Amino acid sequence: MKSRVIDLRSDTVSQPTDEMRQAMFHAEVGDDVYGDDPTVQKLEILAASMIGKEAALFVPSGTFGNQLALFTHCDRGTEVILGEDCHIFEHEVGAASIIAGVHLRTLQTVSGKMDLQKIKQSIRPEDLHFPETSLICLENAYSNGGVVDIDYMQEVYCIAKEKNIPIHLDGARVFNAATYLRTDVKEITQYSDSVMFCLSKGLCAPVGSILAGSTEFIEKAKKKRKLLGGGWRQSGFLAAAGIIALVKMTTRLHEDHENALYLANELKEIPGIKVDSTNNHINLVFFQIEKTNRTPEEIEQIFKENDITIFAPDENGNMRFATHYWVTKEDIDKVIMLMQSILIDE
Amino acid sequence: MKSRVIDLRSDTVSQPTDEMRQAMFHAEVGDDVYGDDPTVQKLEILAASMIGKEAALFVPSGTFGNQLALFTHCDRGTEVILGEDCHIFEHEVGAASIIAGVHLRTLQTVSGKMDLQKIKQSIRPEDLHFPETSLICLENAYSNGGVVDIDYMQEVYCIAKEKNIPIHLDGARVFNAATYLRTDVKEITQYSDSVMFCLSKGLCAPVGSILAGSTEFIEKAKKKRKLLGGGWRQSGFLAAAGIIALVKMTTRLHEDHENALYLANELKEIPGIKVDSTNNHINLVFFQIEKTNRTPEEIEQIFKENDITIFAPDENGNMRFATHYWVTKEDIDKVIMLMQSILIDE
Amino acid sequence: MKSRVIDLRSDTVSQPTDEMRQAMFHAEVGDDVYGDDPTVQKLEILAASMIGKEAALFVPSGTFGNQLALFTHCDRGTEVILGEDCHIFEHEVGAASIIAGVHLRTLQTVSGKMDLQKIKQSIRPEDLHFPETSLICLENAYSNGGVVDIDYMQEVYCIAKEKNIPIHLDGARVFNAATYLRTDVKEITQYSDSVMFCLSKGLCAPVGSILAGSTEFIEKAKKKRKLLGGGWRQSGFLAAAGIIALVKMTTRLHEDHENALYLANELKEIPGIKVDSTNNHINLVFFQIEKTNRTPEEIEQIFKENDITIFAPDENGNMRFATHYWVTKEDIDKVIMLMQSILIDE
Amino acid sequence: MKSRVIDLRSDTVSQPTDEMRQAMFHAEVGDDVYGDDPTVQKLEILAASMIGKEAALFVPSGTFGNQLALFTHCDRGTEVILGEDCHIFEHEVGAASIIAGVHLRTLQTVSGKMDLQKIKQSIRPEDLHFPETSLICLENAYSNGGVVDIDYMQEVYCIAKEKNIPIHLDGARVFNAATYLRTDVKEITQYSDSVMFCLSKGLCAPVGSILAGSTEFIEKAKKKRKLLGGGWRQSGFLAAAGIIALVKMTTRLHEDHENALYLANELKEIPGIKVDSTNNHINLVFFQIEKTNRTPEEIEQIFKENDITIFAPDENGNMRFATHYWVTKEDIDKVIMLMQSILIDE
Repeated sequence: MKSRVIDLRSDTVSQPTDEMRQAMFHAEVGDDVYGDDPTVQKLEILAASMIGKEAALFVPSGTFGNQLALFTHCDRGTEVILGEDCHIFEHEVGAASIIAGVHLRTLQTVSGKMDLQKIKQSIRPEDLHFPETSLICLENAYSNGGVVDIDYMQEVYCIAKEKNIPIHLDGARVFNAATYLRTDVKEITQYSDSVMFCLSKGLCAPVGSILAGSTEFIEKAKKKRKLLGGGWRQSGFLAAAGIIALVKMTTRLHEDHENALYLANELKEIPGIKVDSTNNHINLVFFQIEKTNRTPEEIEQIFKENDITIFAPDENGNMRFATHYWVTKEDIDKVIMLMQSILIDE
Repeated sequence: MKSRVIDLRSDTVSQPTDEMRQAMFHAEVGDDVYGDDPTVQKLEILAASMIGKEAALFVPSGTFGNQLALFTHCDRGTEVILGEDCHIFEHEVGAASIIAGVHLRTLQTVSGKMDLQKIKQSIRPEDLHFPETSLICLENAYSNGGVVDIDYMQEVYCIAKEKNIPIHLDGARVFNAATYLRTDVKEITQYSDSVMFCLSKGLCAPVGSILAGSTEFIEKAKKKRKLLGGGWRQSGFLAAAGIIALVKMTTRLHEDHENALYLANELKEIPGIKVDSTNNHINLVFFQIEKTNRTPEEIEQIFKENDITIFAPDENGNMRFATHYWVTKEDIDKVIMLMQSILIDE
Repeated sequence: MKSRVIDLRSDTVSQPTDEMRQAMFHAEVGDDVYGDDPTVQKLEILAASMIGKEAALFVPSGTFGNQLALFTHCDRGTEVILGEDCHIFEHEVGAASIIAGVHLRTLQTVSGKMDLQKIKQSIRPEDLHFPETSLICLENAYSNGGVVDIDYMQEVYCIAKEKNIPIHLDGARVFNAATYLRTDVKEITQYSDSVMFCLSKGLCAPVGSILAGSTEFIEKAKKKRKLLGGGWRQSGFLAAAGIIALVKMTTRLHEDHENALYLANELKEIPGIKVDSTNNHINLVFFQIEKTNRTPEEIEQIFKENDITIFAPDENGNMRFATHYWVTKEDIDKVIMLMQSILIDE
Repeated sequence: MKSRVIDLRSDTVSQPTDEMRQAMFHAEVGDDVYGDDPTVQKLEILAASMIGKEAALFVPSGTFGNQLALFTHCDRGTEVILGEDCHIFEHEVGAASIIAGVHLRTLQTVSGKMDLQKIKQSIRPEDLHFPETSLICLENAYSNGGVVDIDYMQEVYCIAKEKNIPIHLDGARVFNAATYLRTDVKEITQYSDSVMFCLSKGLCAPVGSILAGSTEFIEKAKKKRKLLGGGWRQSGFLAAAGIIALVKMTTRLHEDHENALYLANELKEIPGIKVDSTNNHINLVFFQIEKTNRTPEEIEQIFKENDITIFAPDENGNMRFATHYWVTKEDIDKVIMLMQSILIDE
């Protein structure tokens, strides 16, 4: 079914495995709005348990889960502290100003970390002129490929708890983070009150993400999910794939990381390519083609002709390659050779 | 896979057919956020064509589609005219005040119709004190089971066009309406600028609805769908079932209507049951148990013991039964006999 | 200073009295954002006491006060029950969808009253599909000139209290209502949790309204007033006029009512004029010029040439005249004579 | 009337001059909602002319004017670029998330300036994942006392114009900025599409600010001012003081600046006081009491006993003194002597 094109654009392009297709075919389903879908229930219980939270909710996407978290944690008009380059701020279409209706206080980050002192100073005291600080958002792994250490998360958590402020973790790739840190994912998520992670991306499920937190939080979120149009009927089909994503795919992410590292190291050897080594923690490789006579479109086209799908470099030659289940070491060798030929040809 | 329980609570409980499961198993899929899912594309083209609009968008639910329509048509703070008992106002958790951020002007309805003169008077002229009227919403079939005639829709459409106001049609069950009116669904949808209809409900797809309209409208809606967290990855699995829903299931809805009518007529014969005949147009039967010694919970329980799932009557004895693909004439005979035994037993 | 033009457009045009100008000139003022303006404080204490609430807040306008009440009572996305022709819904530019962000449930009114049974049915039970009902709004006197009786208010109040829902009273002209009902204003306001009334309009203060309620409510409202840009500095000037409005002007409103009744009765005698007698309770006279050869603009112009300012009749000949402090019985005689001459001339 | 207390808390505490009181007493007024107040009209025309814009609108406060500007410029859900320490973000109660409903993108500032390169990078290209950039906000003078140079404003303006993005200038103290830069205020405001400035603060009017911009912009803003409850009736009283503020008070601000500089220089001489000299441009003096045995409350109390009103130092000893019309050089000498005695006493 899957064509033998190598797709490096993102791990979101990952197709479900054959086992997932089988599971979907045989899924026992029901109307989940009425709480009748046994497969969804199984997924939510499993997800909560693995991620170390009381309860979990199956939602249509990562953006849906993150924005639902803000909507559930925060009263409208309150202030959220988050990194200026985090996904919630940068890549979710400004949804926080529509759905939760919150005031965003973005802080600079270095290697995905906000300055702790700055976080402390950014929490608002009670004053006629100030909105209330209602949430701090963390992200791990960061969508720039970096993983932040658990100590940092703990420190932010302590600052937040002292002021009775909840923490939401955008853990779209939190299993990648756990893999990189060689730790159980719960070690990471313990320093958050709620966490969102994706079943698609590296875990290969076709559709869906999980929002997890306390029972009370998830109960509130469930009604708001309905309001946002996320009340699904027989979603057990998607949940069936999600269960396999959790059980089978979380344990093999190290393969994608090894492939990414291999790809990064090989790219480094090619003259004219500069690899960003600072964030080479997970399955994402960021690099720059420093100089070429070819236009971005020409480069994209050459890859396409070789059955490799990429995003064209930006105007400064920056590129990102993602590895995933459907990208093998042999595929990477093919990519490397092609890249060499392009840059040596010139 | 499907248990032989008769579920009369709603048509939303309808399980997908075996053909749908097969289609899902073999579906060709891709990352729909990148526009790469061929099955989603096929569904959207088919849906647009059948419903008579330029373009269509696959969305997670009926509420999602309706609220996305309001969000796309209306600037925040403008006013929407709609019936006081319509689904958008009554059953979507107040979402219009969150997502679109609009001012709702609900009008009384008689048999699902607003008074035409009242609609005209409700359209705001330009004035420093008035919000702008930005949309009129219609619903057909109505969620109370009634179908409104096409002449009414045309008249509202003419009023709207004269003032350059768009019309959105909540057509969650618009194929049921077309079946009742013995007409092509496009005869109904022609009097709207956008229309939402559900692939689940009577059409049996597991998850998903369609929002359709002009190419420009759908282009705008697509970005707002992403904002609302409705950007799906490999949603071709669900779309595959949706295609069968459109091709195969739209032509058999008359069976559900006949069964509903049969059910209504048989219920009428039972002493102590009063059937609401005014809205017996589609697959929904509304009736009242006028007097019984049993509590609502007891009634629900007796049905359950006979493998029939219903919602307990409300405090006034009001009930709704829905027919659908998985409810046969024989099932209805069983329901009737049980109901007789309950009311005669007393 | 005031020109001897008779202005019948509204009581909002009423100029302050000379005593008010004197009081403004001598006002002791301070920075009210810092809680330093003694005259504002005096006004707020006086207003709270007269209206029978614990605390009061001075705000820039009636719309500001009403919308601030909704913003303070209601969480975003909750539902407010109110009459379909009330000022908050009809004449405040759709602000409730922007500021409070609420779902409006408008009910039909007869003589300014919603049906009690309908109110009860409109209060939402807890359900996954429903927003929460957070407020009921009443209006007295109604801006169509009618006063509703205290029994009705009490009945609505009882319904609300049973469900623990607060009531806000739009009492823009509540002193007119009290005057008509020959009662202390507190008899009316006791059946509300918050009340807004205007110091301008019939009370002649140049600018400002009062929002009153419990101490806790007003404390919350004060911060939201700042958010909405209603944090004033030396507003004691306006408050000085407001104090006189409360002390001196509330006791003379019966004069405006008598003048309005006199005007209504005289207009009735003119052939071709139909006076709406149902709502002739306060200082507003609604009538219709049934037939005339003159255009609305010509009629406005004739009045203007006679130093009388009016709004031109609408396309159906409907007009509203307002009496106030600056309209004497002699002025009304002049108006009547002019109206006679216009209609007899034809 | 004014007590001989020296109030250093802010220039917002400045009382109106006797000439203002006289002007208010004699003001010719009308109902400004109907466009009938000649004094308001005079103020708006004068303000527009002085500030170099086509049209102007009188609003209740600086916060009102700034938030109205965002509400008028920006569609909901779009993104606004502004400095992380600007008043709109820091001190307006999070109003931008309520009224305009926008996504805020705060950038670091150095001496009140955002990095130009960073501004360019922050403007969003068209992308499915991005909100649209709809506005850039500048502030001059900055509320930390600094004035930014006109070249910087021009550079930001050019960046914005290239992308067709409007600029709003929070010029609460723009006349102070012009005074510091020894230039006509229009030299500053030319690099903005809209500007808000306060008639209270250093200009001594009791209440009110001006929002100015193109005729079309102000026309739109006027309706939104009504929606926000800023529709005033006889506001000519306040406008009368505002006219004097513009005509008489804008030319004397250098006195306040000289006094502030004198105060800063004298404070520097006191051991234990560290003055922040970087932002000593206008009428605000920021300094720190580095070490004292007295609590903040004790210091406030000592000043109070000497008829000087201040805000107590924060927990790090930071203080701000503001000079204005009612603070003379002699007053400052008194302040200095008291401060000396406090710190030497210890």
